[in-house]
Amino acid sequence: MKLADRVLNADRLALARLLTRIENEEPEGLEALAELYPHTGKAHRIGITGAPGTGKSTLVNQLALHLRRQGLDGRPCKVAIVAVDPSSPFTGGAILGDRVRMRDLSGDEDVFIRSMASRGAVGGLARTSAAVVDALDGAGFELILIETVGAGQAEVDIAGAAHTTLVLDAPGLGDGIQAIKAGILEIADILVVNKSDLPGAQQTLKALRAAIEMGHPTRPRPDQEGPLWLPPVLPVIATLGDGIPELAEAIANHRTHLQTYGEWQSRDQERVSLEMKQLLRELLARRFMSRQGDEAFNQALQEVLQRRISPRRAVERLLEKENPA
Amino acid sequence: MKLADRVLNADRLALARLLTRIENEEPEGLEALAELYPHTGKAHRIGITGAPGTGKSTLVNQLALHLRRQGLDGRPCKVAIVAVDPSSPFTGGAILGDRVRMRDLSGDEDVFIRSMASRGAVGGLARTSAAVVDALDGAGFELILIETVGAGQAEVDIAGAAHTTLVLDAPGLGDGIQAIKAGILEIADILVVNKSDLPGAQQTLKALRAAIEMGHPTRPRPDQEGPLWLPPVLPVIATLGDGIPELAEAIANHRTHLQTYGEWQSRDQERVSLEMKQLLRELLARRFMSRQGDEAFNQALQEVLQRRISPRRAVERLLEKENPA
Repeated sequence: MKLADRVLNADRLALARLLTRIENEEPEGLEALAELYPHTGKAHRIGITGAPGTGKSTLVNQLALHLRRQGLDGRPCKVAIVAVDPSSPFTGGAILGDRVRMRDLSGDEDVFIRSMASRGAVGGLARTSAAVVDALDGAGFELILIETVGAGQAEVDIAGAAHTTLVLDAPGLGDGIQAIKAGILEIADILVVNKSDLPGAQQTLKALRAAIEMGHPTRPRPDQEGPLWLPPVLPVIATLGDGIPELAEAIANHRTHLQTYGEWQSRDQERVSLEMKQLLRELLARRFMSRQGDEAFNQALQEVLQRRISPRRAVERLLEKENPA
Repeated sequence: MKLADRVLNADRLALARLLTRIENEEPEGLEALAELYPHTGKAHRIGITGAPGTGKSTLVNQLALHLRRQGLDGRPCKVAIVAVDPSSPFTGGAILGDRVRMRDLSGDEDVFIRSMASRGAVGGLARTSAAVVDALDGAGFELILIETVGAGQAEVDIAGAAHTTLVLDAPGLGDGIQAIKAGILEIADILVVNKSDLPGAQQTLKALRAAIEMGHPTRPRPDQEGPLWLPPVLPVIATLGDGIPELAEAIANHRTHLQTYGEWQSRDQERVSLEMKQLLRELLARRFMSRQGDEAFNQALQEVLQRRISPRRAVERLLEKENPA
């Protein structure tokens, strides 16, 4: 049986293999993904990001356990976790997180966990993580939690490509304005203050609520018709499971909001458009390099290193050579 | 007089204008940069990165003041600061940092400060910040401090493109292994524990020294001939200026190391090669879009949104259309 068909038949081993081939951009993986693609579009993609130390892995575990049993509408459902670590070329951090996860979630047929590290190339990670999530969507996972480890732009890009984005904070990580940067607040559909039993939790909650009200509208769009979504700020103690049902409810509310006002589609469109533009750049560059060979590029590089021409001019000249329009 | 000539004549206003035109990728800016480029290659590029709350701005200020008076060899020199904030589409954070800076450094002719925010596009920021640093190099700034605000991959890319990269930590930001991710440790040539008068500083110093010794060689290269550089871990209290002379000395030592073992050149080559590859992608994509127009792309996008074809296949088909090889 073909790889895509085995994945559609809920063969976990085939799915794991498919994801590896997608990550390596092997033709067999891309072919199977193309076959799966018509089955995608059913998953709710939930991004989770926040600074180190906010307890993301624990929260994601607890949320996955809850959703696996009750979904967003009281019905058990298939949940996938994609843990992405753009700041590490290794899988170290991700593997550590997995060990903690295995305790709670291993052996559960309806939870699938995948860790991804950047191997040094963020562009590649955004590209392959999008494809991995597509594959999980096609494989029938209804809720996909996309967890990113850091809190920089790459994480914002990856987590922010979801339908619903959770941003985590925790008390005691410095003042909220430092810990949660404006750019991260901007992508938050739901703010979570984890470890809310720690001293300072009330201040953190207050500071975030004030920041939200001060006017960070969540992704305003020219095509947006309905009322603005005001991101709720929710206290959670992930280690105890406290606040997890309320968080799931907030996610369900956000889904209803998106679907009611046409934003579900506009977010999908924006995400896919961005993904295609990134693919376009990558494939254009590969085609160019394979046509021109490394020699022309290296010659241009040497001229730049000798300060005879600026990098920009050198690249423009390379392009002209290929096609003297 | 032409813009490039005015910049070469140390006209600060012309320099500020040039940097704005480079950031906006205006033809006049790119032209002036091409003229300045033969004058580049003299600057020591020093990247500074670390998690929020580590006191980067204060440290960069103090280091700039010290270097402006004594350079790396006892001689006063021209210092530039480029503060890059990839996590914010606004200049908010950067502007706040600037205010603090103005107090110490304003009116000093030999210090030039430039803040850059991402405006939502990290790829663009890496590209324009490289060009801005080139311009400052050509303008005669001998030491260029490139400060990035976050600690994700984008920051690693920008700060790590320097000759010498400082990674900041501070006590009380969670355990060191969380706060300083493996990927960030990897790019560190010098580790700085700021706020080293706070409780827990000794543990942070110890943890980082242990992590370094456990074997994170600093960017091993196949072409590396000399001994490995073992990143020193230095305690600093930036607010008081404590440890700043020792930090400057460590930077000077690292410079000697790079120059002695041919690494200065290999780092330059790697940085310029990466910059050119990014430019190549960007210019190829722009050329493609201007030839094909938006219509073909939007049509492909609609097909993907209708799940009739995967993003990858759709992009491959767009490329085939352009050039049916």
